[in-house]
Amino acid sequence: MKTNNKKRLSNGLRQSKLFTKTLKNAPSDEVSKNAQLLIRAGYVYKEMAGVYSFLPLGLRVIEKIKNIIREELNTVGANELKMTALQKKEVWEPSNRWDDEVVDDWFKTKLKNGTKLGLAFTHEEALTNIMTNFVSSYRDLPIYAYQFQTKFRNELRAKSGIMRGREFVMKDLYDFSLDKEQHDDFYEKMKIVYKHIFDRVGLGSQTYLTISSGGSFSKYSYEFQTVTDAGEDIILVNKEKNISINKDDFNNEVLADFGVDKDTIFKEYKSVEVGDIYNLGDKFSKALNLTYKNEKGEEQLVYMGSYGIGIPRLMGVIVEVFSDNKGIIWPESVAPFQIHLINIGEDKKAEEIYEKLLEKGIEVLWDDRDKRPGEKLADADLIGIPHRIVVSARSWENGGIEYKKRDEEESRILSIEELIEFFKK
Amino acid sequence: MKTNNKKRLSNGLRQSKLFTKTLKNAPSDEVSKNAQLLIRAGYVYKEMAGVYSFLPLGLRVIEKIKNIIREELNTVGANELKMTALQKKEVWEPSNRWDDEVVDDWFKTKLKNGTKLGLAFTHEEALTNIMTNFVSSYRDLPIYAYQFQTKFRNELRAKSGIMRGREFVMKDLYDFSLDKEQHDDFYEKMKIVYKHIFDRVGLGSQTYLTISSGGSFSKYSYEFQTVTDAGEDIILVNKEKNISINKDDFNNEVLADFGVDKDTIFKEYKSVEVGDIYNLGDKFSKALNLTYKNEKGEEQLVYMGSYGIGIPRLMGVIVEVFSDNKGIIWPESVAPFQIHLINIGEDKKAEEIYEKLLEKGIEVLWDDRDKRPGEKLADADLIGIPHRIVVSARSWENGGIEYKKRDEEESRILSIEELIEFFKK
Repeated sequence: MKTNNKKRLSNGLRQSKLFTKTLKNAPSDEVSKNAQLLIRAGYVYKEMAGVYSFLPLGLRVIEKIKNIIREELNTVGANELKMTALQKKEVWEPSNRWDDEVVDDWFKTKLKNGTKLGLAFTHEEALTNIMTNFVSSYRDLPIYAYQFQTKFRNELRAKSGIMRGREFVMKDLYDFSLDKEQHDDFYEKMKIVYKHIFDRVGLGSQTYLTISSGGSFSKYSYEFQTVTDAGEDIILVNKEKNISINKDDFNNEVLADFGVDKDTIFKEYKSVEVGDIYNLGDKFSKALNLTYKNEKGEEQLVYMGSYGIGIPRLMGVIVEVFSDNKGIIWPESVAPFQIHLINIGEDKKAEEIYEKLLEKGIEVLWDDRDKRPGEKLADADLIGIPHRIVVSARSWENGGIEYKKRDEEESRILSIEELIEFFKK
Repeated sequence: MKTNNKKRLSNGLRQSKLFTKTLKNAPSDEVSKNAQLLIRAGYVYKEMAGVYSFLPLGLRVIEKIKNIIREELNTVGANELKMTALQKKEVWEPSNRWDDEVVDDWFKTKLKNGTKLGLAFTHEEALTNIMTNFVSSYRDLPIYAYQFQTKFRNELRAKSGIMRGREFVMKDLYDFSLDKEQHDDFYEKMKIVYKHIFDRVGLGSQTYLTISSGGSFSKYSYEFQTVTDAGEDIILVNKEKNISINKDDFNNEVLADFGVDKDTIFKEYKSVEVGDIYNLGDKFSKALNLTYKNEKGEEQLVYMGSYGIGIPRLMGVIVEVFSDNKGIIWPESVAPFQIHLINIGEDKKAEEIYEKLLEKGIEVLWDDRDKRPGEKLADADLIGIPHRIVVSARSWENGGIEYKKRDEEESRILSIEELIEFFKK
C-alpha cells in the first residue's frame, strides 16, 4: 500500500471497526455532565476518580485540540519538547517545592535503591534546570519552550469529570527572557495567542480574559475563564467594557486600577479556568541559578513566565458548553470526524459516498453497522459529530442524501455533487 | 496568519531560535554511545539514569517514528487509544501481577487517602478490563487496539542510554480475537507490518525476525532483533535460510522444528530486541472475565496477543547503527529535518533558499547563527541530518549551493533549480 493511502486511512473509520459502543449509563459515581456524556458516547473510560483513559474517539478530539494549540504556538517561535514525569528531589529542593508540607498534591514514588522520586505536577524547575545547559549569554535569550505532557496531581477530591484530573495532559509553555520588559512583551503576545486558541476551539464567545491577583512579580495576573454552570469559579463581567474580574479579587482597588467607576454594573457567572498566564519573575532562575552575561559581561538572572492549558479540561468544558439532552454537539474544529455518515440499507451507495468524501480529504465516521435506524440516529446524536448524512432508499428517491447539522432540527436533501461542493468550502 | 502558513511553520526552524546547543561532553556517568551522541547533539537531556527528556530535535525524531508506526497500523484496522499510567490494584490482582514479589519493576505510589496505586509498566490488564464494557458477542470481535503511551519500569540498572528506560513511550498493540485461529492470522499479519516498520525506519537489513521460547500458549514466540554491538542479546543467524534464533533458545529441538539440519552454519551477533509479538492466549481474559457469546450462545474466553515497540529504544538503536566518529547519520525517514541549510555569509541568499524549500513542503533546519564555518559544519555532522547544503560566496561563484550527503565525502555544486528538482523526487 502506498504511503498516501496509509495516511488517508486515518481520515475514515467504519463504526463496525470501532471497538467502543454507546452505553446506556455512566458509572453511578460519575456526577459531572462532561464525563457522563463522554463515557456514554465512548470517548473516555473512567479508571478511577480524576483518571480517564481516552478511547479512539476521545483521543481524536484531544489531538485536534493539541494541533490547534501547536499551530498557534508556532507563530511565536516556541520550541516543542517533552520532559519527564519522574523527577529527582535535587531539582525541586532549591525552590522549596519538594516537601509534601509545601506542595500538597505530589505523587511520590521510589527507585529500587530507595531514592525518592516525584511525579511532576508542573515543570518550572525541570525546564529551568535544563536551560542551565544552554543559556550563558544575552544572545541565547529569549527562549520560548513548551510541551504537551502528562501531569500528575494528587487531588484530594476529583469530581469534575475530565475537567480536574489526577493524571492529565497539559500544554505548558515557559518564557525565558532577558528582563521584565522582554517578558512583558511576550506576555502580551500570549494573551492574543490564547484568544486565538479559545476562538478556534469554539469557546471564544464564552471565554473572558479575567483579572486576578498577581504574585510576587506583578500586581495582577490573568486567567482565561469560560462561562459554564459546571464552573467552580465565579467571575464578574461587564461586556461593554470587555472587563472580567475573578470574584475573589473584586474590590475597589481593582476597579480603580482598571479605570472602572463604581456605578458600572457587573454580571456574575460561574466559570472554569481554561488557561493561565503567569509572571514568574526570577523565582526559579534564582533558585536554580539560571543566569546569563549581559553586553557588559555582568551576570543577570533570567526572567520567566509560564502559560498553561489543561487539554482534557478544555475538552470537558467544550462538552459542558456544547451539549443538549440528546448528547454532545462538537464544534467543527475539534470534532473527532467532520461527517457522520449513516446508511439505512443502501450499503453500496454509502460506501461509494464514504470513499468519495475520503478522497476529498474529509474526515468521516461511517455507521455501517447492522442496527435499527432509530438506534443509529440516537447514537449519532450522543456522539455529536457536527454534520450528519443519512443514505436510505427514501433519501435516494428524494434526490440524494439527507443532510442535517447536529444542532439544527431540519434536514434537507442534497445530491452527491452538492454535498461535495458543500464541504469543499 | 492563515492556517496553512501556521502549519508550514513547523517544517522549518532557524537554528538561532532553537534553544539547544551542541555540547562538548556528555555527562561522565553516561556510558552508552546512543545517549552520548544524542546528549551532545542536543536531542535529549538526561534527568537521571534511564530517564530522558526529549528536546526539540529529539521530539521530532520520536514523532517521525510514531507516525511511521501509526501509518502501518492503520493498514490492519487498529484503533488508537491512550490509557493511563495510574493503575488501581483491583485490575491487577486477578492476573496476579500486582504483588511486588511477582513483578519486580513496579513503581508504586498512593492517593491522599492512602490507596496504593501502580504506574503501568504494560497495559494487558487495563485494556482487557476496558474491553469488558464493549465485548459481549462474537460480532464484536476481533478488536485491534494500540497506544503510544508512557511506561514506567523500575529497572535496577539502566546503562543503555535511551535503549532501556525507566520512563519511556511504548507502542503497545493488543489483539482480542475469537480463538487461536483468528489470533494466529493476525499474528502473521503483524509480522509483515513489523517488517515494514523496521524497513521504513532504516533498520530493515540489520533486523531479524528471531525465534525465541514461547509461553503457555505457543511453543515459540518471535522477537525482532537488530544487530548492533551495543546489544545485550545474542542471536544466531543464517542469512541464506533467513533464520535467526535467540542464543538462549538455540538447541537441537528448535533446529529440528524449523527444518534446519545440524550442519547449517550460524553466525553469532550481538543484538537488541526492537519489537516483540506475543501470544497471550486466554491468560488475561480468564483473569478479568472477558468473554463473548458465540453463535450458539455459549460463553467463550477471548483469545489475545500483544505487540510492542519501545520508541526511544528504536531511536537509540538507529543511533547505535548509524553514526560515525563525527556524529549521528539519520536515515531520511526519521531525521528531524530533511535538509540542514548552512550559510557562510550570504544571509539573504540563504533566506531565499530556506523559504523556497519550505514552500515545496521540504523540512529544513537553517543554521543562521553567526558562527565560524568550521563550528557550523562540525555541529551539522554531529546533529546528523542526511542532506547538507552550504551557501557561501564561493559556492555562489561556482554556480549555486554546495550539496553533500552526511554519509558521503564528496560535495557537489547544484543550482537552486537543480536542488528543488532533486528534492521533488
